[in-house]
Amino acid sequence: MGSKAQELLKAMRAEIETELTLFLKEQSQFLANIAEELGPPARSLSSFSLDGGKRLRPLFAFAAYIGAGGKSSPEVTRAIASLELLQACALIHDDLIDGSDTRRGKASIHRHFETLHQNQELAGFATRYGQGAAVLLGDLALVWSDQMLNSSGITTAQLLSVLPVHDEMRVELMAGQFLDIHEQTEKNTSVHRALKIARFKSGKYTVERPLHIGASLAITSLPDRSEINEIYSNYGLPLGEAFQMRDDLLGVFGDSNITGKPAGDDLRESKHTVLIATTFERVSEKQRVFLHENLGKTNLESATIDSIREIITTTGARSYVEDLIEELTDRALAALARASLEETGRALLLELAEIATKRSK
Amino acid sequence: MGSKAQELLKAMRAEIETELTLFLKEQSQFLANIAEELGPPARSLSSFSLDGGKRLRPLFAFAAYIGAGGKSSPEVTRAIASLELLQACALIHDDLIDGSDTRRGKASIHRHFETLHQNQELAGFATRYGQGAAVLLGDLALVWSDQMLNSSGITTAQLLSVLPVHDEMRVELMAGQFLDIHEQTEKNTSVHRALKIARFKSGKYTVERPLHIGASLAITSLPDRSEINEIYSNYGLPLGEAFQMRDDLLGVFGDSNITGKPAGDDLRESKHTVLIATTFERVSEKQRVFLHENLGKTNLESATIDSIREIITTTGARSYVEDLIEELTDRALAALARASLEETGRALLLELAEIATKRSK
Repeated sequence: MGSKAQELLKAMRAEIETELTLFLKEQSQFLANIAEELGPPARSLSSFSLDGGKRLRPLFAFAAYIGAGGKSSPEVTRAIASLELLQACALIHDDLIDGSDTRRGKASIHRHFETLHQNQELAGFATRYGQGAAVLLGDLALVWSDQMLNSSGITTAQLLSVLPVHDEMRVELMAGQFLDIHEQTEKNTSVHRALKIARFKSGKYTVERPLHIGASLAITSLPDRSEINEIYSNYGLPLGEAFQMRDDLLGVFGDSNITGKPAGDDLRESKHTVLIATTFERVSEKQRVFLHENLGKTNLESATIDSIREIITTTGARSYVEDLIEELTDRALAALARASLEETGRALLLELAEIATKRSK
Repeated sequence: MGSKAQELLKAMRAEIETELTLFLKEQSQFLANIAEELGPPARSLSSFSLDGGKRLRPLFAFAAYIGAGGKSSPEVTRAIASLELLQACALIHDDLIDGSDTRRGKASIHRHFETLHQNQELAGFATRYGQGAAVLLGDLALVWSDQMLNSSGITTAQLLSVLPVHDEMRVELMAGQFLDIHEQTEKNTSVHRALKIARFKSGKYTVERPLHIGASLAITSLPDRSEINEIYSNYGLPLGEAFQMRDDLLGVFGDSNITGKPAGDDLRESKHTVLIATTFERVSEKQRVFLHENLGKTNLESATIDSIREIITTTGARSYVEDLIEELTDRALAALARASLEETGRALLLELAEIATKRSK
């Protein structure tokens, strides 16, 4: 048995999944009433949203809500569970943009529909059908997330309080995603730019904004929550960056059986992460040439992946990023320690910091 | 000088564009503050939303609002103008899914960013960059549309009234889009299925739902507006289908200088429209073989396009669809004539029926 905070997070995760299951069932029925052809996309999107995921964003929002004095309720659970559907949109579109074949150990959405097209020997082009389905299912997930929030049953004051934060978060998410694809068009890596992307994609979207959403549900007056928002930024921004660095390490060194993504996926996609940018700052000329020759190759062999991993390790880039994660996490925890917060909320945030930065998937 | 209704629509179109311009300027500044790299996407999305478009959906919402007794205000204008940004999302993603090169006489968004990548000799793949940018700009347009609605300044009662209708409309839009791409995987056309798609893509999304949105802003109690909603459905559904049939005809016979899309675009994409499905019901075996050989060819020559057009005309499919447009429009106008509506609103809806079904672009 875990600590009280661990038990509470576990219970909350189950409640989030119950609410998601209910919402997806209702909405799938709505689609089925329009046309039976909408059965497969509804089922795909439902199982994509339910089979896996750490539910980190709703849990951060929940912890922040409790930390700001909120009392848990099914309405608030529904409101924050909607963040999982936004995340489904981000992942489906991300996989499409990156051309990733797998997600959470299964076929990514565009590959799933491509295969479906091939197996059923449908007319037209399988690749195009897969891409089209992924664009539209991502859009549907985005619209559903909004609908789940709007129809959650939270009070009018809570809804009016959360909408502006939610909208700003989504704009920042799309901005971060655009910066990420734009970064891949740069010929050289830059630690500075990689850090900026980490800040928007993860610092803000994964941690800080979900915390602000939680705060906005507990304290509906913006002036009244400015102090706690600042605390949450001081905790959330460094923690979110640490979360992203952990992602970077898992994208290179992660166990594919646990991450559900192929080993070395970030290397095949030549992601300009902080880890890779740091490596480039430290390589010999020979190593630089080797990396430039191999990063981004879609058919990277496992021996080459091992050689790249060795370079990242021996240059010290790997331990540099590990140290950075620790430093950023310490900064987040220090902000938490000195903050005036409801004690259960603080315990939840402490536990979540552990989960976000020490995870293996 | 036009009629009073024409003048009012013209003035409203200008106000919608003013509000869109203001919103896009503010939001582009927000992005520029995040990173200068966000300048090009912000500019592209702004000019895409501002350069062209008939503003039909906001105008339908406006007419319905006035028809239901609403008084015009900048807040309501902002709320309904947001529909143009939703439409920007639909068009950007639609062009990406269909692989269309042009929109409103200019490069489609994915082609624009592909060209930008080539011209600036960026790293990575131009096609992939173009596709990624189009996915994300469509997402951003969707989020912006929501933000523009949420921050429009309409009353809380209006916002609570409009959100459920708005959410349902967006789900129906994505459902219609999915049915559309799914239809292209069918080996044969079907008038029945083509009509169903026309109902969701246009009957509901382009006309009926914008009307319900207008009604929900004028009468915030759902039971109180059930009668006017029914009137708007009786007018909006047939009119929306007629709108889509006009689109089908323009997609084959339209003047590319006016439509801003290449001549015969629907033939190159082998769209299963009501027009094409009707043609297939009436062709000889020889014509059927000819159509199957040529529809969907991306490099269709203009002589072949002319031959296909001739088949569509001589089989009588073209005049059948023209008759259907007239019949559907008559049904819409009859519903309008017998309805109890505020007179200016009725005049606006009359005028809009003309614009939606007799247009040349």
